[in-house]
Amino acid sequence: MSSDPSAAVQRDASGRLRHLITLEGLSRAEITTLLDLAQSYVRPAGAFPARDRGLAGHTVANLFFEPSTRTRVSFELAAQRLGAEVVNLDMQSSSRVKGETVLDTIYTLQAMHADILVMRDAEPGLPAAIAQLVAPHVAILNAGEAHLSHPTQGLLDALTVRQHKGDFGALRVLIAGDIAHSRVARSAWQAFRTLGVAEMRIAAPKDLLPGKEEFAGASRYTDIDRAIEGVDVVMALRIQRERMGSARIPDEAGYHRTFGITPERLRQAARDALVMHPGPMNRDVEIASIVADGPQSVIQQQVANGVAVRMAVLTTIARNLRGEGSR
Amino acid sequence: MSSDPSAAVQRDASGRLRHLITLEGLSRAEITTLLDLAQSYVRPAGAFPARDRGLAGHTVANLFFEPSTRTRVSFELAAQRLGAEVVNLDMQSSSRVKGETVLDTIYTLQAMHADILVMRDAEPGLPAAIAQLVAPHVAILNAGEAHLSHPTQGLLDALTVRQHKGDFGALRVLIAGDIAHSRVARSAWQAFRTLGVAEMRIAAPKDLLPGKEEFAGASRYTDIDRAIEGVDVVMALRIQRERMGSARIPDEAGYHRTFGITPERLRQAARDALVMHPGPMNRDVEIASIVADGPQSVIQQQVANGVAVRMAVLTTIARNLRGEGSR
Amino acid sequence: MSSDPSAAVQRDASGRLRHLITLEGLSRAEITTLLDLAQSYVRPAGAFPARDRGLAGHTVANLFFEPSTRTRVSFELAAQRLGAEVVNLDMQSSSRVKGETVLDTIYTLQAMHADILVMRDAEPGLPAAIAQLVAPHVAILNAGEAHLSHPTQGLLDALTVRQHKGDFGALRVLIAGDIAHSRVARSAWQAFRTLGVAEMRIAAPKDLLPGKEEFAGASRYTDIDRAIEGVDVVMALRIQRERMGSARIPDEAGYHRTFGITPERLRQAARDALVMHPGPMNRDVEIASIVADGPQSVIQQQVANGVAVRMAVLTTIARNLRGEGSR
Repeated sequence: MSSDPSAAVQRDASGRLRHLITLEGLSRAEITTLLDLAQSYVRPAGAFPARDRGLAGHTVANLFFEPSTRTRVSFELAAQRLGAEVVNLDMQSSSRVKGETVLDTIYTLQAMHADILVMRDAEPGLPAAIAQLVAPHVAILNAGEAHLSHPTQGLLDALTVRQHKGDFGALRVLIAGDIAHSRVARSAWQAFRTLGVAEMRIAAPKDLLPGKEEFAGASRYTDIDRAIEGVDVVMALRIQRERMGSARIPDEAGYHRTFGITPERLRQAARDALVMHPGPMNRDVEIASIVADGPQSVIQQQVANGVAVRMAVLTTIARNLRGEGSR
Repeated sequence: MSSDPSAAVQRDASGRLRHLITLEGLSRAEITTLLDLAQSYVRPAGAFPARDRGLAGHTVANLFFEPSTRTRVSFELAAQRLGAEVVNLDMQSSSRVKGETVLDTIYTLQAMHADILVMRDAEPGLPAAIAQLVAPHVAILNAGEAHLSHPTQGLLDALTVRQHKGDFGALRVLIAGDIAHSRVARSAWQAFRTLGVAEMRIAAPKDLLPGKEEFAGASRYTDIDRAIEGVDVVMALRIQRERMGSARIPDEAGYHRTFGITPERLRQAARDALVMHPGPMNRDVEIASIVADGPQSVIQQQVANGVAVRMAVLTTIARNLRGEGSR
Repeated sequence: MSSDPSAAVQRDASGRLRHLITLEGLSRAEITTLLDLAQSYVRPAGAFPARDRGLAGHTVANLFFEPSTRTRVSFELAAQRLGAEVVNLDMQSSSRVKGETVLDTIYTLQAMHADILVMRDAEPGLPAAIAQLVAPHVAILNAGEAHLSHPTQGLLDALTVRQHKGDFGALRVLIAGDIAHSRVARSAWQAFRTLGVAEMRIAAPKDLLPGKEEFAGASRYTDIDRAIEGVDVVMALRIQRERMGSARIPDEAGYHRTFGITPERLRQAARDALVMHPGPMNRDVEIASIVADGPQSVIQQQVANGVAVRMAVLTTIARNLRGEGSR
């Protein structure tokens, strides 16, 4: 078990996943089972999406305290296609303005029989805190928590790699960009580590590397050209333009020159290396547009897998809520 | 019949409820029938919510000119769970900005076969005015009108009390707080009075008591400690922080000290008195947090009953629109 | 075929409509077939709306870069009533703020198996540009493009006229108002011209007439009193208040006096002339309130037909996407 308190909080008395707050503490078998279920929901482009009634009777509430399009729509479609009722709460215009606490909003939704609450917040700790306070029939799904955790993103990244590479044991994976502030990096790292990749590398400008106590076992780079050598997977992270004003970070063109994933740099990776990005992309900043749209890019496949992974998580959590899950 | 013009406006030629704008003028039998139907939609926490197809074919439009989370979501879930099509209109970003009148927006929705229009507005009079102008197959449901009326709130309050106390004839009910500006107080009072409670008390700081022509028959208090003595139900109202700047109203801490529902004050009520609040709460202002979460609190049950009551109202109104209702 | 590039872009290799971006280039037979299908979805006021499952499995995404209530709700209800999954994206609060391109947003939705993208934008050219870039199983429906095109509006206008007048060959049609900036005027003109109306007139204050290269064959007027003489259809356009500040345009009262559709002016039209307006209306500016609500007005019928037309377009496009359409 992990030292991350969320890892324990998210399990019920039988050890089943009742919430999904972090990938920390999930076993390889648990992740593999989720990926297998997600894979069963994948359909080729142009086919109708998978649909079933596994969430019929359940009510999913999307609570996004940070604005998001892609993740909110991904969860909304996943829930709809499983037959759930879905409500969206824009937490900027909500009763928060009337002074209500977040917890009272949660209790209100819970009283209305909303039983799966999908939550995104800029501050750390809310999902775990809420998970300890909701009723036994209510689950919290973390859709993005500060710089800490974005578990469905980590799962979709793993699923995408598995579809192309099969065995994780032979893989060298690079995550490049603003690692320090990235929940995507943390969740992807947790997934890949647990799935047993051969080598994990993180690369960032010096000021954007995380503290040494994090990403234990990963190789650390500040030189992207060295970091990318021979890797099988390159995951570029979004540069947050709003931080670009800071003196310690170069401007966009400078970032691209010193750290962007360019065709030249990509040639230093393994010949069939995958190019990934969690989106939304800043084209020609952290990633060259031609690379994002190139033959090695699986960026749109990540998005497609996102819906499948969220269907798998919703289905699993709903089963566990009803006491039907197996360990 | 009542002197409130909305009371007549909301009935069709046969005297059936076609709209629900106010509880004024509803008979005890009518309210009881609505509560009975609502009770049939109540499910225990942890069970799936009640669902049926009673609104299949109907289209419910939520028009909220004032922001609201809980009431909008409550109506949305009630309509979804009855099989209706539901659309939400954010009337701040609507065509109102292009100069369209509210009435033309209503006519537009009506032409699109939206037949149940759920409306909240800060100004008095809109629901009754609209109700007189819509087509015969269209119903208006008042989801909060200025300080005047919030009929589904009054019904859910009555249902919650009935679930615990059964007979209204023996009950002493206190509503405490900003009575003057409260649509919740007015609708609750109409419901409890019609259901025949033994005694109705209202308590407010002097400047927040309503005029003498209102709440006829209720006992009036400015001293919360005297008002709460021996009552069976204590309903605390939300203090509207935005008005707190006014010189005549004390600050939040002062309000709590002089008028908040504290554990000490609650001990002066009947031993098994219910504690109610319409939400959203300002904890430790109008109500002590420990009281809101205490064993006598039925606040979350009110929220749960809200969905059930709205399902009952939607079902009843839809039947009456189709000419299937009995009187 | 037309010189409008969108006219070619919207067809697949077999010449079928894959997208709907403009009415330019549609044959009379194609428009008639769409109107016939739309007519089959029309229900009388007070009846339940038409519903079927023709879009089951499809996912419709509404992307409105300009705010809209009526068109967005009309498409949303049309899609819901055909059994589609529907998601709404408020593109003001979207990932656009994070620097993502519109195209990447489209690719994201496409990857999520959203296959019908309904789009409104203030700039010209986006729908045609996007249509050339999406996957073969994805269709773009233009829900309003700058001053250029609003094809479902043109179709609903034609349907409304057909319901009252039958044969287009005998009709004189007037469109009056800010023609230069009106997508409604352009799409209506394309529809009526193709359907073979006897005479098409456009009338606008001098500065609001379009260039001579547009509306070829239409008679042009700057005097509304002359333009309206003997016409069978009068379509008034919305004056955009936001432009009213400009020196060349009179104020609202002045506009009404010199260009508004008043009862006096309407008496110069044919005795049974239809009065139309695309909404939202500025009452007593471009149209007298008494005319808008008068016996010759079919304005609400236009709104009702809007849902029917959008159902017909969605059904047709979905069939063509699946390769089931006939030419």
